[in-house]
Amino acid sequence: MGIERVVLIGAGNVGWHLGHALLEAGVVITQVFSRQVEKSAMLAKAIDAEFISNLKEVSPEADLFLLAVQDDAIESVAMQLVDHIGKHALICHTSGATPSNILTKFTKRSGVFYPLQTLSKEKVVNFREIPICITANAKADEEDLFALANRLSSAVFIIDDAQRATLHLAAVFANNFSNHLFTIAQQLLANQNLSLDLLRPLIKETAAKIQVHDPGSMQTGPAVRGDMQTIERHLKALKDYPEFQKIYQLLSLSIQKNN
Amino acid sequence: MGIERVVLIGAGNVGWHLGHALLEAGVVITQVFSRQVEKSAMLAKAIDAEFISNLKEVSPEADLFLLAVQDDAIESVAMQLVDHIGKHALICHTSGATPSNILTKFTKRSGVFYPLQTLSKEKVVNFREIPICITANAKADEEDLFALANRLSSAVFIIDDAQRATLHLAAVFANNFSNHLFTIAQQLLANQNLSLDLLRPLIKETAAKIQVHDPGSMQTGPAVRGDMQTIERHLKALKDYPEFQKIYQLLSLSIQKNN
Repeated sequence: MGIERVVLIGAGNVGWHLGHALLEAGVVITQVFSRQVEKSAMLAKAIDAEFISNLKEVSPEADLFLLAVQDDAIESVAMQLVDHIGKHALICHTSGATPSNILTKFTKRSGVFYPLQTLSKEKVVNFREIPICITANAKADEEDLFALANRLSSAVFIIDDAQRATLHLAAVFANNFSNHLFTIAQQLLANQNLSLDLLRPLIKETAAKIQVHDPGSMQTGPAVRGDMQTIERHLKALKDYPEFQKIYQLLSLSIQKNN
Repeated sequence: MGIERVVLIGAGNVGWHLGHALLEAGVVITQVFSRQVEKSAMLAKAIDAEFISNLKEVSPEADLFLLAVQDDAIESVAMQLVDHIGKHALICHTSGATPSNILTKFTKRSGVFYPLQTLSKEKVVNFREIPICITANAKADEEDLFALANRLSSAVFIIDDAQRATLHLAAVFANNFSNHLFTIAQQLLANQNLSLDLLRPLIKETAAKIQVHDPGSMQTGPAVRGDMQTIERHLKALKDYPEFQKIYQLLSLSIQKNN
């Protein structure tokens, strides 16, 4: 049978991009629900779906109910939803940080449909390059979700809850923390009247190298060289930034240990 | 007059790319020196220059002597060089980590020609996008170096030693440390039989966003949201990696302080 009709719950960044990707893949989005009327009405219009602002208006006639809502809203939305559509519908959330079993008390046909990317509405992304990680309680649903994901992306993975938790943790290191290092760099530069523009090409190239190489083999800098003179000079230069100094020390030590 | 004839000392990654970029810009590289005969002979051939393996063979007939050697070799190479070519030549090093005055004892016409990028021979780069940071002791040399850099790159900056030191330090955060975070992410994934391929698109997109936005405004994740439940869960998941746990804690604190 497969998944042909989807109800999209949530019109935030993930809902916005998933809605458009599903439409492009030829999937019918029958309804878009959101409490925030304005932006969800816009999304509904863009992807040719009915807009609803009350969960009681959700039509049970859909193959998948996709919950692209904040992590802490998943449970309450699912509860309201099954009150209305019953316990036999396939319900998935899209969160990397939330176990799949948060939904199993509401339906045996629970799952996760997790696109692993940092999404913001302003920026168009090529969805085919975004890894989609699938988890499902029932084998038949897993197959259907896999087939659906494959229509959107060329990188689909079936993973379990433990793997998804690790993936989310690793993404915090790779995205959130590296982004913060860019913020620190910008602050250091600003203090010398220098713009981050000086480092933007370096940041781009660092990420480009990782696309085809292992980061371990690309590690450069004073720590991996064991250049203690430079490290000492840098720590001295950071004396007015005790917090950044600590980060410098800890990451340098970790580089020396792991390389 | 300007700089038309360059002697290139060093045939490592920086020398390799600089040599090619200079040639493309129409600059004549008269000689390439390196102690490592094999790779420098290859470079010399590629950029149509004479190859020499003895500093005493350097011809004084050049507008610029460019020292693209390891940081700790700059001083000794400069000393041998001026013994031979005299004290009136323009000599620049290419190091972000080394003050310009390391050369002033050898010549009053000292300077720095610092391309700010992570360069490896295997990877072709678009030199026009690489920021080049210029420092010079004499005003006339500064102008000539600026003009030369402009022929290679569309992003040329005149900076002083304090600024270059800060720039180098900031680059350690933006490049070396973020690369190490990618290594940590890969290790965490490997323990759950997951490939870094799952995060490669995220890493690419994180860097792409920084090309047009400030990293501060792009910060996402549990720390900036103040999502203590997720932070606690992540710290627990890292209990077997005390070192990564410490890094997680420190960077999360720093994100919360700075956003």
